[in-house]
Amino acid sequence: MSAPPPLSKQTSSVPLHFALLLFPSFQALDVFGPLDALNTLKRQYPSLPLQLSILSPTLSPVSTFPSSTGEHSPAFEQCITPTHTYASPPPAGTIDIIFIPGGLGTRLGPADEEGWKPLVSYLNTFFSTPSAVKNLKGIFTVCTGSFLLGRSQIPSGNGSGGSRGTLDGVHATTNKRGFLRAKEELKNVLWEPKARWIRTDLALPLGEGEVHKVKLWTTSGVSAGTDGVFALIEEEYGADVAEFIANILEYERTTDPKDDPFAVEL
Amino acid sequence: MSAPPPLSKQTSSVPLHFALLLFPSFQALDVFGPLDALNTLKRQYPSLPLQLSILSPTLSPVSTFPSSTGEHSPAFEQCITPTHTYASPPPAGTIDIIFIPGGLGTRLGPADEEGWKPLVSYLNTFFSTPSAVKNLKGIFTVCTGSFLLGRSQIPSGNGSGGSRGTLDGVHATTNKRGFLRAKEELKNVLWEPKARWIRTDLALPLGEGEVHKVKLWTTSGVSAGTDGVFALIEEEYGADVAEFIANILEYERTTDPKDDPFAVEL
Repeated sequence: MSAPPPLSKQTSSVPLHFALLLFPSFQALDVFGPLDALNTLKRQYPSLPLQLSILSPTLSPVSTFPSSTGEHSPAFEQCITPTHTYASPPPAGTIDIIFIPGGLGTRLGPADEEGWKPLVSYLNTFFSTPSAVKNLKGIFTVCTGSFLLGRSQIPSGNGSGGSRGTLDGVHATTNKRGFLRAKEELKNVLWEPKARWIRTDLALPLGEGEVHKVKLWTTSGVSAGTDGVFALIEEEYGADVAEFIANILEYERTTDPKDDPFAVEL
Repeated sequence: MSAPPPLSKQTSSVPLHFALLLFPSFQALDVFGPLDALNTLKRQYPSLPLQLSILSPTLSPVSTFPSSTGEHSPAFEQCITPTHTYASPPPAGTIDIIFIPGGLGTRLGPADEEGWKPLVSYLNTFFSTPSAVKNLKGIFTVCTGSFLLGRSQIPSGNGSGGSRGTLDGVHATTNKRGFLRAKEELKNVLWEPKARWIRTDLALPLGEGEVHKVKLWTTSGVSAGTDGVFALIEEEYGADVAEFIANILEYERTTDPKDDPFAVEL
């Protein structure tokens, strides 16, 4: 077993505080592929003060597939304990990376109010709070998590006091089975039909014509999130670190973001 | 979006009840790669009464990395809610597949008593209860989960009333970074240094010279569990079903159990 390679940047400049935004009926692997790579980073670099906050509409455990609907009994679900609610989140200005997974719970429908809507409201508040935005380093979405980011609003930044879709005019990708729904619902997003993930910059208005640029990773469906998080680890902590962690997890990475065997033909 | 293909067997003969055996400091992806494939199976086949029990030493949420040790604060952990304790498990004879993940919590050391030991004691009791054994269809281990199975005992079956290691003389694999520890600790297991996973039969003594054969999948480290579960799905529910689920998860399977880029040289 080899020793961990040095980080490519100073500890003071790498992302340390990740905020996972959950909702009922999230897709488990969207969450745990990326998180387990970060769990392993934390274990291998114990002096790095990595921190994870898990936000949810309430403090009750959040299910991958709530059995309370009664539709699919007996239960085949896993429940995760949140650390914060959207009404009582970590202090503005402490979050470095926002992580939004996807899953059936992102769908439009009757469960919206208790489901994904509190998450989108939280994003709207976050994006209109300059002290929160200024500290943010990046946003990472997996699968239909990009729908939720696309439903949130940022200040239009033209002095009108209005707002616009966070992903309007931005290159992004999503689950390929949900691709047509994405194009239909969020028409102003530049959806890419062939991408394991997309890494672009996102300009968040701070007011008075100022913007703060953050890194944006949107990944394709479920398993693509794991390749996406290794791209994040490579960019933020170093290529050797990403390779080291992937070897521990015996994970065969897709390292080319355009290598997408699940691409859709339009 | 295509319709789910038919199962290759009658519902009455496929595994329905999975029991996940947890312990503190389990590896998240060991658990959630396989479970998310099964979650998706459940969602795509809602009439299939798949069921998941999650066993743990207590009913408190089980952490991937208990922050209470104080060693690695701030916290970077995820906590899962169990459904049963080892002292109060699902009724003997209802479990079809036992699923044992790995992780740091499998290590020998001071945390044994509250950690993995209750899991191994549960297995010992299970394997000496013919009504439980008779219903069992298979055992699935990921990563160092095979250490835990290897530490359990089955009746020796020679009428002596004695017992022997469950994996003694059995082909199995494990995490490749833990491979030398495996060979050192469990010398009678036929450890394979090059295997993404191993599928073999395991004969469990029922007493009076009778044995009950179950299917055994042991997989290599962490991510290998996801390839392993697709092998299980292929064998138990059908090759078309496995491909269908993998496509939904946008997962690129390793389908050859001997294709192991992380193999160790001995």
